[in-house]
Amino acid sequence: ASRTPARGLATAKAPPSLFASLDTFTNRHIGPEDSEVQHMLKQLGYDSVEAFVADTVPPKIRVAENDISDESIPSLSESQLHNRARELAKANKPVKSYIGMGYHNAVVPPVILRNIMESPAWYTPYTPYQPEIAQGRLESLVNYQTMIMSMTAMDIANASLLDESTAAAEGMVLAFANSKKRTFVVDSGVLPQTLAVLQTRAKGFGIKIVTGDASAVLKDEAVRADLCGVLVQYPDVNGSIKDFGALAQEVHGLKALVVCATDLLALTMLKPPGEWGADVVVGNSARFGVPAGYGGPHGAFFACIDSLKRKMPGRLIGLSRDTQGKPAYRLALQTREQHIRREKATSNICTAQALLANMAAMYAVYHGPEGLKRIAGKVHALTQVLKVLVERLGYTVINADFFDTLTVDVTGSAKNASAVHDAALAAGVNLRRIDDKLVGLTLDESVGIEEVIKLANVFATAASKPAVSPLQLPPIESAAIPSSLQRTSQFLPHPVFNAHHSETQMLRYIYHLQSKDLGLEHAMIPLGSCTMKLNSTSSMIPLTFPEFSNVHPFAPKDQVDGYLEIIKELEEDLCKITGFHACSLQPNSGAAGEYAGLSVIRAYHESRGEGHRDICLIPVSAHGTNPASAVMAGLKVVPVKSLADGSLDLEDLKAKATKHKDNLAAFMITYPSTFGVFEDGVTDACSIIHENGGQVYLDGANLNAQIGLTNPAKCGGDVCHMNLHKTFAIPHGGGGPGVGPICVAEHLAPFLPTHPVVPVGGDKAINAVSGAQYGSASILLISWAYIKMLGGTGLSDSTKAALLNANYMAHRLKDHYSLRCKNKNGRVAHELLIDLSEFDRAAGLKVTDFAKRLQDYGFHPPTCSWPISTCMLIEPTESESLEEIDRFCDAMIAIRREAEDVITGKQPKDNNILRNAPHPIHILTQTDAEWNRPYSREKAAYPVPWLREHKFWPTVSRIDDAYGDLNLICDCPTVEETASHSA
Amino acid sequence: ASRTPARGLATAKAPPSLFASLDTFTNRHIGPEDSEVQHMLKQLGYDSVEAFVADTVPPKIRVAENDISDESIPSLSESQLHNRARELAKANKPVKSYIGMGYHNAVVPPVILRNIMESPAWYTPYTPYQPEIAQGRLESLVNYQTMIMSMTAMDIANASLLDESTAAAEGMVLAFANSKKRTFVVDSGVLPQTLAVLQTRAKGFGIKIVTGDASAVLKDEAVRADLCGVLVQYPDVNGSIKDFGALAQEVHGLKALVVCATDLLALTMLKPPGEWGADVVVGNSARFGVPAGYGGPHGAFFACIDSLKRKMPGRLIGLSRDTQGKPAYRLALQTREQHIRREKATSNICTAQALLANMAAMYAVYHGPEGLKRIAGKVHALTQVLKVLVERLGYTVINADFFDTLTVDVTGSAKNASAVHDAALAAGVNLRRIDDKLVGLTLDESVGIEEVIKLANVFATAASKPAVSPLQLPPIESAAIPSSLQRTSQFLPHPVFNAHHSETQMLRYIYHLQSKDLGLEHAMIPLGSCTMKLNSTSSMIPLTFPEFSNVHPFAPKDQVDGYLEIIKELEEDLCKITGFHACSLQPNSGAAGEYAGLSVIRAYHESRGEGHRDICLIPVSAHGTNPASAVMAGLKVVPVKSLADGSLDLEDLKAKATKHKDNLAAFMITYPSTFGVFEDGVTDACSIIHENGGQVYLDGANLNAQIGLTNPAKCGGDVCHMNLHKTFAIPHGGGGPGVGPICVAEHLAPFLPTHPVVPVGGDKAINAVSGAQYGSASILLISWAYIKMLGGTGLSDSTKAALLNANYMAHRLKDHYSLRCKNKNGRVAHELLIDLSEFDRAAGLKVTDFAKRLQDYGFHPPTCSWPISTCMLIEPTESESLEEIDRFCDAMIAIRREAEDVITGKQPKDNNILRNAPHPIHILTQTDAEWNRPYSREKAAYPVPWLREHKFWPTVSRIDDAYGDLNLICDCPTVEETASHSA
Ligand SMILES: Cc1ncc(COP(=O)(O)O)c(C=O)c1O
Ligand SMILES: Cc1ncc(COP(=O)(O)O)c(C=O)c1O
Ligand SMILES: O=C([O-])O
Repeated sequence: ASRTPARGLATAKAPPSLFASLDTFTNRHIGPEDSEVQHMLKQLGYDSVEAFVADTVPPKIRVAENDISDESIPSLSESQLHNRARELAKANKPVKSYIGMGYHNAVVPPVILRNIMESPAWYTPYTPYQPEIAQGRLESLVNYQTMIMSMTAMDIANASLLDESTAAAEGMVLAFANSKKRTFVVDSGVLPQTLAVLQTRAKGFGIKIVTGDASAVLKDEAVRADLCGVLVQYPDVNGSIKDFGALAQEVHGLKALVVCATDLLALTMLKPPGEWGADVVVGNSARFGVPAGYGGPHGAFFACIDSLKRKMPGRLIGLSRDTQGKPAYRLALQTREQHIRREKATSNICTAQALLANMAAMYAVYHGPEGLKRIAGKVHALTQVLKVLVERLGYTVINADFFDTLTVDVTGSAKNASAVHDAALAAGVNLRRIDDKLVGLTLDESVGIEEVIKLANVFATAASKPAVSPLQLPPIESAAIPSSLQRTSQFLPHPVFNAHHSETQMLRYIYHLQSKDLGLEHAMIPLGSCTMKLNSTSSMIPLTFPEFSNVHPFAPKDQVDGYLEIIKELEEDLCKITGFHACSLQPNSGAAGEYAGLSVIRAYHESRGEGHRDICLIPVSAHGTNPASAVMAGLKVVPVKSLADGSLDLEDLKAKATKHKDNLAAFMITYPSTFGVFEDGVTDACSIIHENGGQVYLDGANLNAQIGLTNPAKCGGDVCHMNLHKTFAIPHGGGGPGVGPICVAEHLAPFLPTHPVVPVGGDKAINAVSGAQYGSASILLISWAYIKMLGGTGLSDSTKAALLNANYMAHRLKDHYSLRCKNKNGRVAHELLIDLSEFDRAAGLKVTDFAKRLQDYGFHPPTCSWPISTCMLIEPTESESLEEIDRFCDAMIAIRREAEDVITGKQPKDNNILRNAPHPIHILTQTDAEWNRPYSREKAAYPVPWLREHKFWPTVSRIDDAYGDLNLICDCPTVEETASHSA
Repeated sequence: ASRTPARGLATAKAPPSLFASLDTFTNRHIGPEDSEVQHMLKQLGYDSVEAFVADTVPPKIRVAENDISDESIPSLSESQLHNRARELAKANKPVKSYIGMGYHNAVVPPVILRNIMESPAWYTPYTPYQPEIAQGRLESLVNYQTMIMSMTAMDIANASLLDESTAAAEGMVLAFANSKKRTFVVDSGVLPQTLAVLQTRAKGFGIKIVTGDASAVLKDEAVRADLCGVLVQYPDVNGSIKDFGALAQEVHGLKALVVCATDLLALTMLKPPGEWGADVVVGNSARFGVPAGYGGPHGAFFACIDSLKRKMPGRLIGLSRDTQGKPAYRLALQTREQHIRREKATSNICTAQALLANMAAMYAVYHGPEGLKRIAGKVHALTQVLKVLVERLGYTVINADFFDTLTVDVTGSAKNASAVHDAALAAGVNLRRIDDKLVGLTLDESVGIEEVIKLANVFATAASKPAVSPLQLPPIESAAIPSSLQRTSQFLPHPVFNAHHSETQMLRYIYHLQSKDLGLEHAMIPLGSCTMKLNSTSSMIPLTFPEFSNVHPFAPKDQVDGYLEIIKELEEDLCKITGFHACSLQPNSGAAGEYAGLSVIRAYHESRGEGHRDICLIPVSAHGTNPASAVMAGLKVVPVKSLADGSLDLEDLKAKATKHKDNLAAFMITYPSTFGVFEDGVTDACSIIHENGGQVYLDGANLNAQIGLTNPAKCGGDVCHMNLHKTFAIPHGGGGPGVGPICVAEHLAPFLPTHPVVPVGGDKAINAVSGAQYGSASILLISWAYIKMLGGTGLSDSTKAALLNANYMAHRLKDHYSLRCKNKNGRVAHELLIDLSEFDRAAGLKVTDFAKRLQDYGFHPPTCSWPISTCMLIEPTESESLEEIDRFCDAMIAIRREAEDVITGKQPKDNNILRNAPHPIHILTQTDAEWNRPYSREKAAYPVPWLREHKFWPTVSRIDDAYGDLNLICDCPTVEETASHSA
């Protein structure tokens, strides 16, 4: 039973040539070996993979066998991929950027680079929905929240958003939701990409954006009367630092909110926005040790005043306690999440940027407040030096106050801005292009005095003056920050930011936290709808090549040939895979993709004079982001019923489509369905929509079940998003990053989003949906590598293996649990939905009880209570081996037997091995009297023999959610709390 | 109390300039912060670091304050180091080598690269002397042993040796020790570097090496009469595969041993040496996924027949059981170790190559037998293709049989060998330089058909013939291996080599093993004499740059400018640090350095006509490798007594030196002493030796206590070795790699070792001591980076912090334990020795009981029972923070109180919390009846509060060593054993 290159999965494969590469990725990516595939087929009663697939996927949507094959997408071996990635890395020119505009050259502390960004223990886990096996990441995210709260002086902060621009958009929508008024003022100092994203977002909500100097604009009565909020940038895009205190008072007087976009490093020296009246503070935390990466991924932050906390978008981590009273973290106020609020949501944020937030938080932990002050102090001082040097050359710096950014009027000394940019490029540096007269530059932590002199010499050259002497540096005595705006309050006094400053301490802290968390490096994470497949090392390695890390998104195009080639290839491959015509990689998450796709549909209707079309049909079984995205795109959601077996009610669909045919904009459908079945009716459903003038949006969360067998175009869709962080192997990072590109049919291609700084997209493009033109560009490398290494045949084989694994699992579980949905041949798709309601009825056992008990068996529970509250949705993916799948099924079956003991009364309903799960170690050390349970410690800890060798221990017992929500605490303990706690 | 750049440690430091780099390494490397330094000084009663140092280090050996400072060794920040390393990487030319001679281009599976080679969990632990917290590495090393046994078909194999050449030398010495005869035949097919190392090693033992065709040589009666063994290479250096079966029979008839050097990949196709009569089999396992690295480090293997097992050098891992009967691995037959056998030892091997052995073993786990066969099959087939192509061009391949290596007589087609080498260099490849007529080349896993065509075209160019057509490739039908020498036996049938073939499975296996092990990522490892300091990420990162990994040690010098610069800088810095004149980086371990240094001393005496000097004085307190190395260098060991306080008995030294003055060769001394004290008498001791014609060898294991304060030259030494894996931060890798360079005074410089292929060393050089001219060249990068980042001031500060940490610890423990040694001011050096004999007397509690109980407290125990059997030797290093040191002291003090309970009879002598330690989790789940101990589970698991949060769990209870040695099992379970076990 060995792993040979010719796999049972491939429909027909010649024996490998003597000359073929041996490090073929497919063999490493797919879990089951040949013999295991045969075993599973046999159990299911098939004699070939093809026969199995034929029963699983409706024939009418099948694409040709060779549609996605090594002919259409040739495969590279792991070493070939590595060589190609190096080649493309070299194709990016190593020009250092001082462009600023929200993106900096970060210095990643090596201990964080290697042990977080490059560590599967940190990048493979999912969102910490199972807090008992996620206390490490949860603590780190609380550090992040605390850091943001402390730096901004705000009451509460969330655990990251997608990027600064969308965070600002969330701020705008919050202001709108808060007051219901419709005018939102964007100060002229705001980043252009943020303005663009706001403009896109304003559309759906009917918000009116007014731009200009905020104080001036506020003189306008019409604005005053309808004002919901104001957005300012602090320091602004040109580097100026303005006092917005009076403005804030005025805005508050109008019962509107002040949203402030800011910079964490500057806040070490600047009076924090919370101290001058900001209500919402947003920004990018990437300069705290996260590489620029050609635009992302970066953790954006969102903080607000206490009274807004229950309206705050995104995930919030809070402290609660477990059944033993031990403090424990978990996602707080989850009822706010969009999957609950659906069309009442004002945000669709789901996947965020947990990994990058963790990196930034760790950066603050490692440097501490003093270290951050030193870094900021140096950046600021060097900027002052540069200012003097540039002024000595006869240039005019137009911003008197600044932290790290200068805007230079070049006309006094150089011919024009081009002359300066030419000199810059000749010296190997990029400056910010503003206009013919003005040039901008922003310094950062990576800059030393040598670089400052180099920059000054760029200006000297452009002025045809002699080079600057390094001996004539001006002394720097005080900060170039108005004294009223200098920070006087302390920040980050919490012990965690003042304890781990040697590398040894830092390393141990990182490992201490990760030891509490269950990621893919430990066991299967069979989260339905999440596709927790292998995140291969080969695909992760290029990500941290400096040639990919240190690239500014607004660097001139001729410096990024490597990136552009990867982007082109990825777009092409995604089009082949979806059957669509064009692709936008801009959206930073699945939900952002939904929003982008629906916005494209709206633009399409508008272009045809049908801008009134605003009805969006969405099945009740849809993921909560679907209705939320629809609302954000300005659509009205009309739910479509499901039949008893979970499938779409085509009658209801037809009725509603017909009823709304004059205003029908779109239909959103997930395929295979969120219940995990390939429904026959999908093409009919699409036809119904098209006949009634609507467009079909296909939610690609389940694309893993389609590749090579069918595709969204073939199913009848017009647009789909993909979750590159599910189907295309970007690691989930504990809750992000993600990428949610959209692919569209030809008629929609003109509307793909553009960008105000670097134009991309179609020729009738909607405005930007993300801050960077290619969103989280650097991690596109991962999906690119994944696709290139598998090649078309490997991709198709992976789909088949995913289907087979799920069906085998369904087969093993079906006699023990009630399988909620299957197709007429008895087949599920790539995931299965089991219904546990019978246990509630018989013994009061809930889904959660089964989930927590699975933790005791060493597994991450499947998706719980979604899409049906009494169900578990289980998705093994193609990467799991038969052995692991069998272990999981054995565990499920064993738990089923344990439940039987409760049903039969052997164990009481209120004190049994499921209800009391999970069982962390400190419970096992209790005395017999304390233990007091109708089962042994042994049974609690080692219910099956393989746990003796493979046990993963939850670190807390079951967590009390309600307690935490009532007593909301979302930041780290202070010195005093720590002291009183340990006393 | 924050980490500011101006540290209390630095004698005088200007406030950092605004322009200074902020990512200064010293602040990350040294554990205690300023305020902690002040706290410790205060506890010790000093008001300055200088006052403390003055009391600790004897004034007469102090060097000037600025001897080692940022003037003598400027410091680079972490990013500057990174940039410099990239620059030097680029200075190595990317020429692909086909030179062979025991070194190959390895393909490191990315999952192993990132999760083992780049993972602190694998590279930071020490030798698994504490098996209860090292079961992961132990299992992996057993996999290695099993792999070697199975591939070679030998009865037993050890857990690695330093390199193939020294392994062959160990084989020779074993043969000599086995028969006491003195003639050893080295076949002409043996690698030249191995012959050189054998010649060096033969000298000390008085072995006579005879070279030539082994069968021919054996016709000589004198050889037959005195034969102890024969070394053959299989396949040989030219690629030929000879049948040594008859030779083996003949050698056995002479009661001598056959030592075979071989190649693991070839053994997938060749009849293994164990099947044709080899007694000892050695080789390099690096082509199993370990980079060439300009010569190393690589895991060498050593396997032998059962009857030789108790004479086998090196560490051996064996299976035993714990107190619960649970199977558990540990170091077997430890009584063989050189620290016990001392001058009776025939080997001095101590640090080996555990990390590289683990990588090779994991490679076999990942590929499995079928994968290995496919790799070998491809290499062999491509070699056959190349042979045909080369022959078509009119060349003659002189070896008819081969696996992967061809030796080509070029005279038929090209002018001479130079013409071929010129063409090769022009094409960017290196071939093996043999002589004017012959050219050699060796293929490996990294080679594809494109490379083969490129190579053929090199020959075409040299022959002025047209390029080879890729379309005219010959078909390959059968192996070019004599059928009698083809392998028919199976290999690696064990489950572990047939289970983890997907990346997901492999990743989990790696993490599963590492979860059992305590490395520096978890807690302090205060192993006295081992200096377990921070292994910084910055110093590790360059190691895996491809420009450093993929370099053959015999590549032409003009291709390795980057390496040569690093080597030069490191040699210079080490000379500055030791006060010596010249350096050799060749020795692969501390013990190898001792041997090299003593050999240099012998050569020096010989050069002065005093070759008869053969007495080596060694204190009884010396490390076991000292006498072993002396014996290997042909010296007679005369022990020197210690005084009651552990210090050197100068009277005895004088008496013995005088007595042996006509034959005195050397004196070996460790400084500070192995008892952890700076003795005043060191300079007097050295004078005594010099007055009597001897040379002083300083064992540098404790150099961490000297740097910047004193140095071996100042102490009066003539030569010293350093353990770069201790003092200079190369990670210990779980038992290697190491580097043991020697520095020597000017008069010894001419004798530094050379190398037969790439000449290095002095002009009267001794022959090679390692297979590669610079030993484990790639990891020199780590020490280079360490020194460059700290700079001289940081190095000196580190020494001071190491001394302070140890003295603070001594201060905290002294009222609870009896401190064995201190100087007249009450100061210890960088480590402290505590004596536990009182507990044995009072309550039968041994050192081991305290050590195992420390595991329960989450700590790796200190060095136990060395240099005194009743003692613990504790070394915190400079990298530990006050907090960690206090936690450790608290634990020691708490255990002292637990011991009191036994002394007072509260807990019985045979059933108490120390004797029963450690307490793994599965013991805590016992019922009260089974538990049956006079203390609670709670007390066993969480004796102090911080363990609730920071517990590291031993995975087995105490291991029965005697049982394992009686029932020696050193390989993995077979399919049958696994089946019966789980049944
Ligand atoms: C069906 C479905 N649609 C959309 C999403 C949203 O994707 P994202 O979390 O990337 O925003 C999810 C996320 O799990 C999902 O399962
Ligand atoms: C004092 C002393 N000398 C020599 C050695 C041998 O060094 P190595 O293990 O590198 O061979 C050691 C190793 O621990 C040691 O402690
Ligand atoms: O992340 C989800 O809500 O599935």
